[in-house]
Amino acid sequence: MNNKPIGVFDSGVGGLTVVKEIKKLLPKEEIIYLGDTARVPYGTRSKETIIKFSYQNAVFLTNKNIKCLIIACNTSSVYAYNYLKKIIHIPVFDVVNPVVDNLSTKSIKKIGIIATKATIRSNIYEKYFRKRNVKVKIYKKACPLFVPIIEEGEIKGDLINRVAARYLSNYKNIDLNALILGCTHYPLIKGVIKKILNNNIKLVNPGYELAKNLKYYLEKSNNLRVIKPSDRYYLTDITDSFLKISSIFLGKNLKNIKKVSIDN
Amino acid sequence: MNNKPIGVFDSGVGGLTVVKEIKKLLPKEEIIYLGDTARVPYGTRSKETIIKFSYQNAVFLTNKNIKCLIIACNTSSVYAYNYLKKIIHIPVFDVVNPVVDNLSTKSIKKIGIIATKATIRSNIYEKYFRKRNVKVKIYKKACPLFVPIIEEGEIKGDLINRVAARYLSNYKNIDLNALILGCTHYPLIKGVIKKILNNNIKLVNPGYELAKNLKYYLEKSNNLRVIKPSDRYYLTDITDSFLKISSIFLGKNLKNIKKVSIDN
Repeated sequence: MNNKPIGVFDSGVGGLTVVKEIKKLLPKEEIIYLGDTARVPYGTRSKETIIKFSYQNAVFLTNKNIKCLIIACNTSSVYAYNYLKKIIHIPVFDVVNPVVDNLSTKSIKKIGIIATKATIRSNIYEKYFRKRNVKVKIYKKACPLFVPIIEEGEIKGDLINRVAARYLSNYKNIDLNALILGCTHYPLIKGVIKKILNNNIKLVNPGYELAKNLKYYLEKSNNLRVIKPSDRYYLTDITDSFLKISSIFLGKNLKNIKKVSIDN
Repeated sequence: MNNKPIGVFDSGVGGLTVVKEIKKLLPKEEIIYLGDTARVPYGTRSKETIIKFSYQNAVFLTNKNIKCLIIACNTSSVYAYNYLKKIIHIPVFDVVNPVVDNLSTKSIKKIGIIATKATIRSNIYEKYFRKRNVKVKIYKKACPLFVPIIEEGEIKGDLINRVAARYLSNYKNIDLNALILGCTHYPLIKGVIKKILNNNIKLVNPGYELAKNLKYYLEKSNNLRVIKPSDRYYLTDITDSFLKISSIFLGKNLKNIKKVSIDN
């Protein structure tokens, strides 16, 4: 038993889709969420900047007496996970490794990945599959306009359909076994993606894969919380737009929100 | 005569459209440019965060022995100009006041404004015209998807045409005298806008209005530079995408680029 909270950080409010998955599998766990809304998005920035921002987020959360740290942001997971794992003395979870773990156990040959520019240019999935000696063919596509469009709340309708059709056009003639939704925002447009590709395609939500791995770890290591949680949400900037989209991502309204400064 | 450089800051590389206008009117002036590419965009953030970031940009530039400071970012101009003007002991220019100055002298009744969310919600143009006792009717529209689409280099074609048609639809039945392009990125889609509204509509480019005011000031105050300039460009983050779009904004490739940290 371990009643300490779990720290979750993301570049903004997209990571709330990861929190949603964690709460589904582990409703008793207490979440301390940090969204770096003052500097979102990370997916268009350089490796050095992503590591710097991720480090500042991690320091803020580890000062809150958390039992483990979740990197909910795919871009941060790609560039900062190995670094943070080395310097932080509690378990650190990312949202890329759980996906590769899960897909590695299946007879899957052709995998599509959609993600931010930074995630796509990293070639991280290729590297991780290779490290596990798993042979898969990877097809990838950066979708930089998905985040701003989804953050405008346009998760259905003409605009998102058109942009998605363009980004996914090359996948239409490939019989993909799975498509990784490599950005926290993308689970919100699952319906749009399925309609374009194929209703039977397996869409992989990294938040769900992470939640499964986290549950397994907390159970095995006897670190489950047993008392009622009181989640807290810290944001580095607060606007009406962020609050509005937050409730869409989390599936309910946020309570206990506080603005914090983490860059000094 | 004053051979010191001019400091220009922007939330990112969009401010290079302002530099381009300055260089057209004042080719001998030397520019030190700071683009806060690690934290772009500002237009979706809160007032407090915009002021904080703008202050950090201004401090960086005033340490470079500049003769005046240009706030090239519309969003920063809206929220940080009055604050920076008070605390900085060299002349400070924004990109909102020159537009209002210019339009106030003309027989103009109906003005449209397109800008970021933060600029639109500020009601700054209404306030500034009222302050000058100029009666105009203002029609405004936040266009949050223009920046990400333009930053993807999509300054023509189906996507920008469709998004622009949607944002500008309410203007079609108003006989606007002028439309203010209230964000540094928008001059790049002038053609798209003209095609949708009316080829004869007067599009106001704040960068050009600022350049005119700046030229007037430098001439009147005997502060023109007389020796060859050697412009320098500082960015808080550098990626291939930023460099590519920079050259579109500036109209030529950037030289003397350096990555800097300004938040600590």
